[in-house]
Amino acid sequence: MNEATLYQHGTLALLVPGLLTGTLTMKELLAHGDTGIGTGEGLDGELIILDGKPYQVNSRGEVNVVPESFTLPFANSHFAAYQPLMTVENATKEELHDQVLGLTHNANTFFSILVTGTFTDVKTRAVAKSERPFKSLAETAKQQSIFTRDKVEGTLLGYYSPQVFDGVAVGGYHDHFLSAAHDFGGHLLDFGTVTGDVQVQTFSTLEQHLPVDDQAYCEHDFAKDDIQGAIHEAEG
Amino acid sequence: MNEATLYQHGTLALLVPGLLTGTLTMKELLAHGDTGIGTGEGLDGELIILDGKPYQVNSRGEVNVVPESFTLPFANSHFAAYQPLMTVENATKEELHDQVLGLTHNANTFFSILVTGTFTDVKTRAVAKSERPFKSLAETAKQQSIFTRDKVEGTLLGYYSPQVFDGVAVGGYHDHFLSAAHDFGGHLLDFGTVTGDVQVQTFSTLEQHLPVDDQAYCEHDFAKDDIQGAIHEAEG
Repeated sequence: MNEATLYQHGTLALLVPGLLTGTLTMKELLAHGDTGIGTGEGLDGELIILDGKPYQVNSRGEVNVVPESFTLPFANSHFAAYQPLMTVENATKEELHDQVLGLTHNANTFFSILVTGTFTDVKTRAVAKSERPFKSLAETAKQQSIFTRDKVEGTLLGYYSPQVFDGVAVGGYHDHFLSAAHDFGGHLLDFGTVTGDVQVQTFSTLEQHLPVDDQAYCEHDFAKDDIQGAIHEAEG
Repeated sequence: MNEATLYQHGTLALLVPGLLTGTLTMKELLAHGDTGIGTGEGLDGELIILDGKPYQVNSRGEVNVVPESFTLPFANSHFAAYQPLMTVENATKEELHDQVLGLTHNANTFFSILVTGTFTDVKTRAVAKSERPFKSLAETAKQQSIFTRDKVEGTLLGYYSPQVFDGVAVGGYHDHFLSAAHDFGGHLLDFGTVTGDVQVQTFSTLEQHLPVDDQAYCEHDFAKDDIQGAIHEAEG
């Protein structure tokens, strides 16, 4: 257990051509952290792990705790050791993101943000699980649901990756959300403002694990995939 | 000690704008492996670690063993557990590289190759150490020396990185060389043919460590650097 290490299984790039097989179990992911985000096999919903509990928001907007046998093609986790950074009042998403970078000088470093408070005009999405043979990220993401709340208490869990890792991860911020009542969440697309507490945890190390036992991954030719284009289309 | 893990300190990207401060000691690098490659502070020569011994080829072509206090801005290491893959006879560099990928299906995986044998028409280079304030990789690399041997016994140590990690590392192969007599080596630019034994070690994990305590690194704005262009100019 190392609080300076961020664990990542898979790459965002492998989702682009539809390599959506779950190649890591939730049990294995939790061995690398009590906090995290990810997606299930076939892009089965949006995951957020808080205090060791893995919540899934599915495409019907339901929030479930998934079992240890749940598998994921792509995920992050780390052991929480956040430091308080600031409180914000009516900050937009852009203001929140910029202020964190301004205070931490972390633009070239992996770090996580945990924001608890009241969010307005929150817009999340969750993708519907697709079945084999899996289609591309762009095709699969068409089966996504968008959820909105005018005002909701909750937690934003985000990871920031330096730009040179774009494609490996999302260059910049990648935020998931879960309401305090555990009845709303998903991949965070946008919000109006947030008022609450901002905590940060900075990592010196990315432990990047690849699905080297998955034949489809190993034999795929990524040369023809527009990784950056597809990711920023789907994750923006 | 995990033989499925490749350790990397720094990124190739940080060399491009000249962030050449040695931010890791050789002692720290050797804690993550007995085999590796790298460069010294200010691009001080080309390093190759074999059997736990860190050899440096400097810009005069001299081969020295460096002390544990020697510092590096960028390096890889791992604990050797190579598996024999094939023998080659009069294989060109391209044939060697292609045959390894063809046999291993490792194009999307980090792995290392260790080739021992007789090499013809070997061309290596080593950069001369630059002093502060450090200039860009392109400027610094102008002070490089090229060394050639018609025929030489020696060891090629290479790392292969999946293309999506280009910029983080060298996408594709990155090979260093040391002669069996320890009197010739460096960053391997090219060779005519090789006859010898090829061994491979495949990694499931990249342990990517960043110099988060180096202020110049943390505050640098990479947005204006042509990372891929500069790397393939200098590392080709």
